[in-house]
Amino acid sequence: MLSFEHESLTQRVVFSSGGAAARVRAEVERLGASRVMVIAAAAEAELAQAVTADLSVVLRWDEVVMHVPVEVAERARTAAAAHRADLLLSVGGGSTTGLAKAIALTSGLPILAVPTTYAGSEATSVWGLTEQARKTTGFDARVLPRSVVYDATLTVSLPVPMSVASGLNALAHCVDAMWGPRVDPIDRALAGEGIRALAAGLPAVVADPVGLPGREQALYGTYLSAVAFSSAGSGLHHKICHVLGGRYDLPHAQTHAVVLPHVLAFNAPAAPEAEQRIAAAFGADSAIEGLQRLRRDVDAPQALRDYGVKETEMDDAVQAVLDVVPDRNPRPVTAGDLQRLLSAAWRGADPRLTSNEEENRR
Amino acid sequence: MLSFEHESLTQRVVFSSGGAAARVRAEVERLGASRVMVIAAAAEAELAQAVTADLSVVLRWDEVVMHVPVEVAERARTAAAAHRADLLLSVGGGSTTGLAKAIALTSGLPILAVPTTYAGSEATSVWGLTEQARKTTGFDARVLPRSVVYDATLTVSLPVPMSVASGLNALAHCVDAMWGPRVDPIDRALAGEGIRALAAGLPAVVADPVGLPGREQALYGTYLSAVAFSSAGSGLHHKICHVLGGRYDLPHAQTHAVVLPHVLAFNAPAAPEAEQRIAAAFGADSAIEGLQRLRRDVDAPQALRDYGVKETEMDDAVQAVLDVVPDRNPRPVTAGDLQRLLSAAWRGADPRLTSNEEENRR
Repeated sequence: MLSFEHESLTQRVVFSSGGAAARVRAEVERLGASRVMVIAAAAEAELAQAVTADLSVVLRWDEVVMHVPVEVAERARTAAAAHRADLLLSVGGGSTTGLAKAIALTSGLPILAVPTTYAGSEATSVWGLTEQARKTTGFDARVLPRSVVYDATLTVSLPVPMSVASGLNALAHCVDAMWGPRVDPIDRALAGEGIRALAAGLPAVVADPVGLPGREQALYGTYLSAVAFSSAGSGLHHKICHVLGGRYDLPHAQTHAVVLPHVLAFNAPAAPEAEQRIAAAFGADSAIEGLQRLRRDVDAPQALRDYGVKETEMDDAVQAVLDVVPDRNPRPVTAGDLQRLLSAAWRGADPRLTSNEEENRR
Repeated sequence: MLSFEHESLTQRVVFSSGGAAARVRAEVERLGASRVMVIAAAAEAELAQAVTADLSVVLRWDEVVMHVPVEVAERARTAAAAHRADLLLSVGGGSTTGLAKAIALTSGLPILAVPTTYAGSEATSVWGLTEQARKTTGFDARVLPRSVVYDATLTVSLPVPMSVASGLNALAHCVDAMWGPRVDPIDRALAGEGIRALAAGLPAVVADPVGLPGREQALYGTYLSAVAFSSAGSGLHHKICHVLGGRYDLPHAQTHAVVLPHVLAFNAPAAPEAEQRIAAAFGADSAIEGLQRLRRDVDAPQALRDYGVKETEMDDAVQAVLDVVPDRNPRPVTAGDLQRLLSAAWRGADPRLTSNEEENRR
């Protein structure tokens, strides 16, 4: 039976390669803003300057810190109020958008987002704040950017390995959305389109890092991945990566890139509709074949051991993951399943082989 | 180059077969309403009664007229104000939703829509009013229903021929969205998913009119068709049907069902991405093969001459259509093209043959 709830959220999305400055001006006007607070990390100050030329900027804020520490958010909120900003314009990746969201959460100020990575935060109403090394996240309609301007020329400076890891992180949003706790058919359709776009875009980025067609498809896929994921909620993959990231300080995007095929190989046999949609989106015989082909084409990160984590630490993570396995995962998850999955991700084993071994063991 | 603007609109959509009464209660509560005006045609009074039991209804309105005459809208607006309604609850097809929209347009009252056909009006911010036989339409964010409750059990009484015509009308929204003047890739993805759902649902409705799986897929496809079409705007197909409907008082859904394959056969050769997406959604070798297979399976309306229009009147329509051909149609449209297209639609000719004849003539 078809039984679901789906909530669409109001957001304008503009795609325009090379058009960011003009499009940002138009969106600022549309939003009726005249006192813009520009948020961009110091490393992206020049890029932000180019995008925000001709705007009435009352403040440029460059203190941007990963995971949005609450004291940074507080300083930025105070500054926004002191300068009577009426619009938050973020230019950057997930941490920059995240800081704008932290300000919007308490002030209700509208956000105009100009993303420069494939983080996807710009298309969700999820916020996150870190206090004393503990991250709190939540949903709030006020933090969803009113408009997003995607300009692929702003992403050409993102180095290829980072583009690949970030793009595979976006791909993980699509795949994990397929069996997220609140997933509905609309999420699945959008996630499928996102996979199609990322699978076309990422190899093109690798082949021609400064070419626009690949960058455009990657950004487009990123947008869809975020919309689908934020509606469907975190599946098993994100729970695993959240535990690993929190305990072992592993790099975010790379962790997602490594773990994804192992979760896909584990869940797909029990999730025929997801399997079929993912395979079709990749244009492959099976979901895992499609993902592995893409991973090979883009020289994806291979193994968690490459990022300084020890094999014994994988075992320690098993119980922490077990505690947060999503209710509606397509198949039950045992300690043994997780042990094998994490060990394979640590070693960088072929998930098709571990999955087969497991089937044989049954 | 990927260059587009896409606007998502805030709307909650609930699918629940057999759950309408409970879901409507929950949505009324969520919207904080306590003085509900129920809008349902007299023919659907009983059905509306069942759906709205236990609500605090201040008014039941049953004067529902096709194309929403402005004098009917005025009476309903006055009644809504007199009864201090704080929510418009529509139960019915496009005309019923349309009347609720006419009231919302001037009053700003929120709408909760419970559709009983495949009209799709519930998922758009398009309104329409008719004054002295002239129809005016427009876009307004206020007329988009805040929530929609889809319950397939409410559609099982829709007779099969009407279900097929109405479903093919929804399918026409999907196909025509593919080359609509404002189409973007997101519209195309949603339209593709809509085609997939309608192509699965309609034959199941024909095979088992009271079975729910087909009805559910048809409603789901309808929702997507309306979202995609309202974002992409009217393509050639809808311009033709609008002219024919306005001049010859042809039945709305049937006209769409007959004309669609002829427009698809005409446009598809010049619109490779649309052709590919439509074919994939049908699971067919080509878009037109997929549509014709579906039309055969559901015994679709065949020819305009079956609806009382004369062959000579087709020639009269040519110029009227030429005047409104959308700017961005995938190929130029000449008077000769339209003559052949309308003649084929009048006769109920196989569009694959007329399309081939035309290619040979070139």
